[in-house]
Amino acid sequence: MDFKFSNRVPKQNNDVVGEILKVAGDPKIISFAGGLPAPELFPVNEIKKASDKVFSKHGQDALQYTASIGNSKLRQLVANRMDSHKHINCKPSNICITTGSEQSIDLISKMMINQGDVVLVEKPTYLCALDVFRSYGAKIVGVDMDENGMKADSLETALQNYPNAKLIYTIPNFQNPTGRTMPTNRRKEVADLASKYDVMVMEDDPYGEIRYSGKSIDPIKHFDKDGHVIYMSTFSKILAPGMRLGWIIADEKFVNMFVVMKQSADLHSDNLSQYIVAQYMEDNNLDLHIQKIRDAYHRRASMMLKEIDKQFPRGVKHSNPEGGMFIWVEVPGNINTMELFKNCVKHNVSFVPGEPFYPDEIIPGTFRLNFSNMKDDQIHEGIHRMADAISEMIKK
Amino acid sequence: MDFKFSNRVPKQNNDVVGEILKVAGDPKIISFAGGLPAPELFPVNEIKKASDKVFSKHGQDALQYTASIGNSKLRQLVANRMDSHKHINCKPSNICITTGSEQSIDLISKMMINQGDVVLVEKPTYLCALDVFRSYGAKIVGVDMDENGMKADSLETALQNYPNAKLIYTIPNFQNPTGRTMPTNRRKEVADLASKYDVMVMEDDPYGEIRYSGKSIDPIKHFDKDGHVIYMSTFSKILAPGMRLGWIIADEKFVNMFVVMKQSADLHSDNLSQYIVAQYMEDNNLDLHIQKIRDAYHRRASMMLKEIDKQFPRGVKHSNPEGGMFIWVEVPGNINTMELFKNCVKHNVSFVPGEPFYPDEIIPGTFRLNFSNMKDDQIHEGIHRMADAISEMIKK
Repeated sequence: MDFKFSNRVPKQNNDVVGEILKVAGDPKIISFAGGLPAPELFPVNEIKKASDKVFSKHGQDALQYTASIGNSKLRQLVANRMDSHKHINCKPSNICITTGSEQSIDLISKMMINQGDVVLVEKPTYLCALDVFRSYGAKIVGVDMDENGMKADSLETALQNYPNAKLIYTIPNFQNPTGRTMPTNRRKEVADLASKYDVMVMEDDPYGEIRYSGKSIDPIKHFDKDGHVIYMSTFSKILAPGMRLGWIIADEKFVNMFVVMKQSADLHSDNLSQYIVAQYMEDNNLDLHIQKIRDAYHRRASMMLKEIDKQFPRGVKHSNPEGGMFIWVEVPGNINTMELFKNCVKHNVSFVPGEPFYPDEIIPGTFRLNFSNMKDDQIHEGIHRMADAISEMIKK
Repeated sequence: MDFKFSNRVPKQNNDVVGEILKVAGDPKIISFAGGLPAPELFPVNEIKKASDKVFSKHGQDALQYTASIGNSKLRQLVANRMDSHKHINCKPSNICITTGSEQSIDLISKMMINQGDVVLVEKPTYLCALDVFRSYGAKIVGVDMDENGMKADSLETALQNYPNAKLIYTIPNFQNPTGRTMPTNRRKEVADLASKYDVMVMEDDPYGEIRYSGKSIDPIKHFDKDGHVIYMSTFSKILAPGMRLGWIIADEKFVNMFVVMKQSADLHSDNLSQYIVAQYMEDNNLDLHIQKIRDAYHRRASMMLKEIDKQFPRGVKHSNPEGGMFIWVEVPGNINTMELFKNCVKHNVSFVPGEPFYPDEIIPGTFRLNFSNMKDDQIHEGIHRMADAISEMIKK
């Protein structure tokens, strides 16, 4: 039968990424396509111990319904950490626990976007965020980037051109997909522009703590004077994504309405997992664990960059991330990276073509490589295979 | 600052229920207000054992990202159970795991409802579903009920009056808030009407397995010939709500699009909890556990009904549920149950007034009592306190 879907449903199901990840699931393929953290680094034993303690001490409470805003101990622990590590002045009442960052993006979009409202984004940007914005009828406008992330002057021009812009979506640390980082002065400018033009900033920071070189930079939220910035982060990259827990930090009045929206979305996030993560944080030094992730990803990123420099044809450019999980590559000429993808699959290696990351005009010859989820020998071999595939395409 | 929220955000925050539940949280108050399962019946030890096994056998996998459609073993277990217990002919590809029934309602609404589309509901019905429908701009139309649930003739009239109705939302077993159950012939009629008028049915069945008297009735989905019925249920009432896991069963084409929407909502439901519930189901007899819940709720419901008959003033009517968690009460005359609520709080007892359950016209003098979450002596004492408060109001 034909279902009479709403306008929010994509007309043709062009789930490029789903298709790409499906191919990437083939075990003989070396995949640089996903954005998965390294599972061998999950602190399984420590989480198991935390879980046992939760069942022994709080079994009935952890299995019962809880408040939509989230577990109070977990919100206190997050508030303390965000204060000490991010210099965000916040209380538990500024924090709502979410079912991962994807839900934070979804609920903020649902709260803010009317049909036709403008959302300003980096071009390129996180493709699943684009899907969410589209599902609420947003007009998505791309803002130019340089090696330092979203350009403040381009942002101001866009705000002037679209005076009814509702949201600015930015990933200031080790951006997905480019790996680029926005410096302090620009973060301050973004906060100031948000106030000046009365528009909200969604500061998405899933990777911020995975910095393995350079100095940590305070978030845009640190420079927020009047509540225009919503900061979002997650346990997915610093602990484990399977438990699906993220958080937002915002003005208390905003959080109160966000909680009403969350109640309609899933009542609350998994309560057992909230208890487990809070117990884990109380009993372990999360910083020491994150240091292990940083060390591993640093080694993998360095190896991938070295192999790219050595094996990819001349003229290929790449970003030099100081953290996170991604490298952005630009191939000279007019190579169609969807075609390159197909050729790479024949060579048993995969990545994500640049196209779906672009909100409007597409810059050809770009693609994203993930280095967090492949081991050293796979990185070496995979880049070798890609180099062969690229050479074949350039020669054509 | 004033936030420029979208039209989806309620204009005034009249979170009646939130306020009521807040009052109900006062420990000196006996609360018949919530809809919480009895936590002393949660199989904490068995879930702990399942959890330990998951960490030992599948630690890394359970903590990693998973597919949006859900854990394949859990979907197989749900499919088997729905086939044997509900006579729903389904495969794992007909099932998507959700972050609780609330998410099922939310995503189906997002998929189906355009601004102004009609949703037909029982009057009264589950108030959080009404919030969701409103958040997508639905026009909500109430359909008359009798002691056997939504009336089929009234439903057909409504379908004729609103030819563009998109959804019928119904809770056929032990309905929230009335506790009423729809008999077989009427379920068949609802399925037939859905086909005839090409409208989708959301069959919400969170309480169906908590039947403690009478015979089990096949769901509307059992009579679905052409994919017009989406069946929804949850582990919240038969196992534990803290893990936030529900499921939908629908036509495979519908499920495929539902999965795309779910991906944008939270990527996937908590993976650790999915593994734990699957392991629990493999290692335990869920039916034996559910029998314990049935026995306890049966005792509590019987006691509450007996106390109501004995202590409430003459002329008070109530439903006689064969399962579930709620009793619906009608007080004679024009008693405002919001005022009654305030008077009851003075007597240290609470409930949920009928008003917020009504989609359009409100029938005064009605309210909902929950019996699953209070122990025997509390039920006895609480109904006694309510009787005093009602008598005071009737005398006025």
